[in-house]
Amino acid sequence: MSNPKPFATRIDLRSGLMSGYERHTLRRLSDMPGYFHASPADEDPLIYEYFERDVPPEDGQIVQNVSILHPGAIDGEYHMTKGHYHANRRCSEVYLCLSGRGVLLMQTRDGETGALELERGISVYVPPGWAHRSVNTGDQPLMLFALYPADSGHDYAAIAEQGFWARVIQGAEGHPLVVPRRDGSG
Amino acid sequence: MSNPKPFATRIDLRSGLMSGYERHTLRRLSDMPGYFHASPADEDPLIYEYFERDVPPEDGQIVQNVSILHPGAIDGEYHMTKGHYHANRRCSEVYLCLSGRGVLLMQTRDGETGALELERGISVYVPPGWAHRSVNTGDQPLMLFALYPADSGHDYAAIAEQGFWARVIQGAEGHPLVVPRRDGSG
Repeated sequence: MSNPKPFATRIDLRSGLMSGYERHTLRRLSDMPGYFHASPADEDPLIYEYFERDVPPEDGQIVQNVSILHPGAIDGEYHMTKGHYHANRRCSEVYLCLSGRGVLLMQTRDGETGALELERGISVYVPPGWAHRSVNTGDQPLMLFALYPADSGHDYAAIAEQGFWARVIQGAEGHPLVVPRRDGSG
Repeated sequence: MSNPKPFATRIDLRSGLMSGYERHTLRRLSDMPGYFHASPADEDPLIYEYFERDVPPEDGQIVQNVSILHPGAIDGEYHMTKGHYHANRRCSEVYLCLSGRGVLLMQTRDGETGALELERGISVYVPPGWAHRSVNTGDQPLMLFALYPADSGHDYAAIAEQGFWARVIQGAEGHPLVVPRRDGSG
């Protein structure tokens, strides 16, 4: 893929919908075996989807991604993305929340942990080396505009095997709780 | 500067104002000698300002920048930024317009030219190798959220010397006109 010409993308800053995307990816519950602490066999909701603009996967190019994390919970655990490290460990990511409410869970391979709240107008900087997962703790879609170096790559395997340092669940009176895991069992 | 911890930034998606910035830079007319086709000696308006979050200037890190290009014109030429190439020629940039109306002028060292309209919700991808200048053609501030690799660097000199391929001026009935220059004289 050669260097593109300048191009424009229309993003609805209220709904998060993006025009002109080259990729649209959907993740249903059945695409995420073992991620949630429970997986009802009788339903397969759409958990999230994302839209991306293609650029060459090269150092210096930047991917634009809009994700829609649909509201809901699986047995009390809020809808979340798979989460990933960047395969290229020097690559960061910026998330700008366009609408909705949520939490961005983060962690390093060295055991550092973090969680930052997401709401309309909050951007979160995910430094190199930090895995990241978004969680929708509200009752509306969580819309995020994400930008990352096009040569970042995605390492989903480490998270699929080890999970994140915390789960985000529905607490009493509807307040979300970030509950650290005590061991590696999830 | 060591790798930062994850951090959040609040950006007003209506006004474009950013919290928690480390750098605030102002550009008055007197900071831009020779950029406009005329420079009234008796006034020195604030043309634009920008706010940035500091990250290490390293490959893989991403700078977040919010710019406010104030409305107005200098002898019929709309307020604009200096414009620059990235010193690191493999580095791109993404501009998301949060409010206002304008034009992003672009060009390469090989003589390719481009211009894309900016309005709320339009993002423009500036590929590696393309110089870029924003122009406010509206009557409100033009607010842009820009993201670029932290090792991009800025080459202002080439534009200061050669200018851009076009000027954007107030046409009849208030419609902006993108007027190509016939020679290198500006």
